[in-house]
Amino acid sequence: MTTTVPALLTDGPGAAFHRGTVERRDLGPNDVAIDIAFAGICHSDIHQAREEWGGAIFPMVPGHEIAGTVSAVGSEVTRYAVGDRVGVGCFVDSCRECEYCLAGEEQFCLKGNVATYNGRGYDGDPTYGGYSTAVVVDERYVLRVPEGIALDVAAPLLCAGITTYSPLKHWGAGPGTKVAVVGLGGLGHMAVQLAHAMGADVTVISRTRRKEADATGLGADHFVATAEEGALKGLRNTFDLIINTVSADVDLDGLLCTLRVGGSLVYVGAPSERQSFAVFSLIGGRRSVAGSNIGGIRETQEMLDFCGEHGIGAVIETIGADEVTAAYDRVVDGGVHYRYVIDTATIPA
Amino acid sequence: MTTTVPALLTDGPGAAFHRGTVERRDLGPNDVAIDIAFAGICHSDIHQAREEWGGAIFPMVPGHEIAGTVSAVGSEVTRYAVGDRVGVGCFVDSCRECEYCLAGEEQFCLKGNVATYNGRGYDGDPTYGGYSTAVVVDERYVLRVPEGIALDVAAPLLCAGITTYSPLKHWGAGPGTKVAVVGLGGLGHMAVQLAHAMGADVTVISRTRRKEADATGLGADHFVATAEEGALKGLRNTFDLIINTVSADVDLDGLLCTLRVGGSLVYVGAPSERQSFAVFSLIGGRRSVAGSNIGGIRETQEMLDFCGEHGIGAVIETIGADEVTAAYDRVVDGGVHYRYVIDTATIPA
Repeated sequence: MTTTVPALLTDGPGAAFHRGTVERRDLGPNDVAIDIAFAGICHSDIHQAREEWGGAIFPMVPGHEIAGTVSAVGSEVTRYAVGDRVGVGCFVDSCRECEYCLAGEEQFCLKGNVATYNGRGYDGDPTYGGYSTAVVVDERYVLRVPEGIALDVAAPLLCAGITTYSPLKHWGAGPGTKVAVVGLGGLGHMAVQLAHAMGADVTVISRTRRKEADATGLGADHFVATAEEGALKGLRNTFDLIINTVSADVDLDGLLCTLRVGGSLVYVGAPSERQSFAVFSLIGGRRSVAGSNIGGIRETQEMLDFCGEHGIGAVIETIGADEVTAAYDRVVDGGVHYRYVIDTATIPA
Repeated sequence: MTTTVPALLTDGPGAAFHRGTVERRDLGPNDVAIDIAFAGICHSDIHQAREEWGGAIFPMVPGHEIAGTVSAVGSEVTRYAVGDRVGVGCFVDSCRECEYCLAGEEQFCLKGNVATYNGRGYDGDPTYGGYSTAVVVDERYVLRVPEGIALDVAAPLLCAGITTYSPLKHWGAGPGTKVAVVGLGGLGHMAVQLAHAMGADVTVISRTRRKEADATGLGADHFVATAEEGALKGLRNTFDLIINTVSADVDLDGLLCTLRVGGSLVYVGAPSERQSFAVFSLIGGRRSVAGSNIGGIRETQEMLDFCGEHGIGAVIETIGADEVTAAYDRVVDGGVHYRYVIDTATIPA
């Protein structure tokens, strides 16, 4: 038995979104039913809806930045009650048995976790995401949205928030450290707020000074425009950590040389082009190039609680169902400030 | 005043070595005069003698893997006495004031340390290395060769030893960890011995099985030949640390996918070609590509003491002065097993 719910679907690579429905499973004993209020548009939604990462499942309902309210709970649910404000992120199940699941790092599940959309449950059924009015998720994979964060600005935290929070924590951002954030978009604007709240000295590295005032408003202490001659050269041996949120090519060697000894440059975006570096950029200062991708459920809850304590939310533009297709182009062009959030009340036909 | 000592010189990029002399400074109060017994041939000697790294100073006397005996000490020397068995590595001075010098990591000196050869002292005079019979070095930059390591097998420890010891320690090689060493040459054969002695499970990754018996003899637990179909694919999520000693191009993505979550692949060689990777190879497992280069004086002494305790030395072929020019080609071709050491008694005309 299933329940039919309204959703926004795309039927093939790059096809416009249209209203329709998807089936949600009936509530199991450990399941939480969620009335979705808002769903963020993540850049990875676009990559998948356009099948740029291969192997897409159509029709597709994207959306893994989900915020809403619990509408029903299964008989054995202990963590949530009807009316609770909750979120769902990038995955909705994992094997629960491998060393990484046991360590609370389900993002690294060796069996492969179940993506919130464009994936398949362990039963083989396709998953459908948050561009919809309701979803059913096992309570283990549901997050609590703290008091004081509105659901609309909370939604993007479920991906953009954890994607930047996790590496900042892992690589030790905090008082006395200098963190650079490359690119001020959906991920970058979260990284700046989070690193600032952690107590780090924060520099935004962007191509031009167009977003300088925004960066300052979000908590950046410094701003560097790489279009200005010699901008990176003046920063030799400066940063402990660089979070690279840019999907396009960057001057990787130039950035690496701004790292202190032992510093790391961490990719959180996923450029499809291969990235290249000169080995001397690394060995001269025991530097690292690393990558990081979302976080586990425990750390995602920690991030949400941290945002609640510090009054951090995404900076959003709320749009209706009819605007999603056009919004995708605007995300790719970097025109959104800084995250589109779909008001799912506009989805039912 | 200076002292004239025999040396092997090359007069221009790629020119054959010839016997000659260089001047060594008179003994200052903090200086140690060393009768050089053996000097290792490091691959970086070749890069510099052929001016492949640019800006070479000719005539050049390479050699930064120096082992010998103290022949005289300055009036204020406290650490060494005549007759002590000592070594000199890749640098012979540093600023002594920057944060890295103060931390005992003079390899990262912000002023730039003084290379043992093909460098200039802070007085502007060129430095001449270990392909010679004697050298004068400030005692701070002199290492003690422990009892039980012969000087010939000790010489290569001063560069190849510390270059591999430092990243193994920094990235936590030890009991319960799995370390892969890519390439079994001058650096690789040291990495295998050191990682094994540290208690790690060691895998050698080479192109063919030609060196398998050698690898086992040096302490490797496993051997992987990348020329065999699917060799790396079978190793998904295996290694905590990969030490890449290969100067040529490697299958970087293939290697990265053999790392466990949070694992690092560390370059200790310096390929001149840019290296490229797919970002997904990193972000899927919070993996890092890093670089490491020699070590500080304190850690170099720690490495020598460790080698003394564990009976570790380089595997060498001892050659005379007349063989050095030809030996360079053989190093480049990978024909040496595993380090050439020059018997400096053959240098005087």
